[in-house]
Amino acid sequence: MPELRRDPIHGRWVIISTERSRRPSDFTPEERRPIGGFCPLCEGNEDRTPPEVLAFRDNGTPPNSPGWMLRVVPNKFPALRIEGELNREGEGIYDKMNGIGAHEVVIETPRHYETLATLPLKAVENVLWAYRERIIDLRRDERLRYVLVFKNHGVAAGASLEHSHSQIIALPIIPTTVREEIEGSKNYFSYKDRCVFCDIIRQELQQRHRVITENSSFVSIAPFASRFPFETWILPKIHHPSFEHTESSLFEQAAQILSDTLQRLNQVLDDPPYNYIIHTSSMEQDQDYYHWHVEIMPKLTKVAGFEWGTGFYINPTLPEEAAEYMREVK
Amino acid sequence: MPELRRDPIHGRWVIISTERSRRPSDFTPEERRPIGGFCPLCEGNEDRTPPEVLAFRDNGTPPNSPGWMLRVVPNKFPALRIEGELNREGEGIYDKMNGIGAHEVVIETPRHYETLATLPLKAVENVLWAYRERIIDLRRDERLRYVLVFKNHGVAAGASLEHSHSQIIALPIIPTTVREEIEGSKNYFSYKDRCVFCDIIRQELQQRHRVITENSSFVSIAPFASRFPFETWILPKIHHPSFEHTESSLFEQAAQILSDTLQRLNQVLDDPPYNYIIHTSSMEQDQDYYHWHVEIMPKLTKVAGFEWGTGFYINPTLPEEAAEYMREVK
Repeated sequence: MPELRRDPIHGRWVIISTERSRRPSDFTPEERRPIGGFCPLCEGNEDRTPPEVLAFRDNGTPPNSPGWMLRVVPNKFPALRIEGELNREGEGIYDKMNGIGAHEVVIETPRHYETLATLPLKAVENVLWAYRERIIDLRRDERLRYVLVFKNHGVAAGASLEHSHSQIIALPIIPTTVREEIEGSKNYFSYKDRCVFCDIIRQELQQRHRVITENSSFVSIAPFASRFPFETWILPKIHHPSFEHTESSLFEQAAQILSDTLQRLNQVLDDPPYNYIIHTSSMEQDQDYYHWHVEIMPKLTKVAGFEWGTGFYINPTLPEEAAEYMREVK
Repeated sequence: MPELRRDPIHGRWVIISTERSRRPSDFTPEERRPIGGFCPLCEGNEDRTPPEVLAFRDNGTPPNSPGWMLRVVPNKFPALRIEGELNREGEGIYDKMNGIGAHEVVIETPRHYETLATLPLKAVENVLWAYRERIIDLRRDERLRYVLVFKNHGVAAGASLEHSHSQIIALPIIPTTVREEIEGSKNYFSYKDRCVFCDIIRQELQQRHRVITENSSFVSIAPFASRFPFETWILPKIHHPSFEHTESSLFEQAAQILSDTLQRLNQVLDDPPYNYIIHTSSMEQDQDYYHWHVEIMPKLTKVAGFEWGTGFYINPTLPEEAAEYMREVK
């Protein structure tokens, strides 16, 4: 059973998850690790994943068989497990709880070599619909406090499978980063009576130094304080705290800007490894001051001692220049 | 000139440092990047670094010439620059300041293939003495608020030079991670009237599940809430807020446990890439509730979307098992 442990100094939680238990000899440098071979996410291999919890498939095809456009399945090696009661306990000065939660995999396409940047718009939109449906379903579980959607693309960005997929983790506590963002937005709102994200969008659309691309409902920018080279955020122009309760009519536009932005990244950086995350409001209360968004982080530099020791980041690329490169590609 | 920028939501600062300006084509995956060739840190190449600010050398040898055991030089591509006034300014809703600070390189040995784990104890102790001297000197600069010592060992841990070295960065603001640790220790102290680190040491020495090694003045442990597999902290058994004001008599013991711990890591994990940092109290006030320490973070797994999105970490190795492996090596 995975375990959540809290650092008594920071209050930072970690998940000790020994599902894929790692002994010293298991940590081989990535160059030596082969990619390729059998893929459990490809069409025809449905019996090699846990049974699907959601699928978009051709009429008449039975679950866990070919004929699908998209499948969502529980992670075979979950960081957290859905079964059981949430027990919190102490161990001397330390605090821990058992690792209750959910960990799912969104298989974005039946075909091995397609990616979010090459899929047709309709397929990208389906991915967003799947995220939405799963978040809404997982939020019904009262033990869970936050649902994070994220994607690791490429070995250097932590993807252990090559086949295009994203992941959903539902957690029994609100994660630090999300809490800090929510607190920050709340403080800004109580000071200015405006949403900080709306203010960012307003200033970016006016200055245009850091705008990458936009459509009628979304804008994609290189954030002013980018932590990483070519970091990119996608923001809905219309204020809404939560991704999953956003108007259905916006999903087509959301798919368009996500696809457009990823295509630009691919062209400027030659299919770089990247992570993206969707930040939506937490389940705690109405968070009208919060504004959902997507953060895309290409993995081009190494996070090293300085970053671990400070929480600061050193970024060798001017966000304004990154935006210019991204704007100029066809 | 580097620039410090503040994220308006989190309040997180980043350093935009274009000293080694990176265009898209400069980001080549690490496998393609050659290591080897000319080394500016080797003995005999003293003219290829900026002039030394500190050196331990044979009597009679002139500065910036051979005959040294250890040199400290300014970083040739500094993330921050020491020249100028600290100017804070706004840009619409954003905040920034110019990148005032210091960035130095501690060259730990004149010989290319030695490392902290293979150097004689006296040489490791010299490294610690150099850290101490540089921190005390940099703290005299009133524009600076924190000095971080860190080390990147191995390409995967962000080292761009193979020759054994560590780095010192002095910053005009107290970094988030340090502030959170200081705040956390303060809160614990006001609740318990005890230092949280002292309580950790007491519990670890009693339980012994996570103790790796110890000597009369220091203990090395796998922390209860380790973020990374084989994460290791070195803690002084006697309470002291700051590394640089620690009693001189402890430096020999500090060198011994650092060397011992790194040798164990090397044996268990076959010379893994790692980062370490020294956390010492900030310059703001007497921080009696704080306790300096070293955090060693082997770079064995990838930090990916989940970690960026949450601030949580997923650790696949039980700290108790890691400690056992580390304890058992000869």
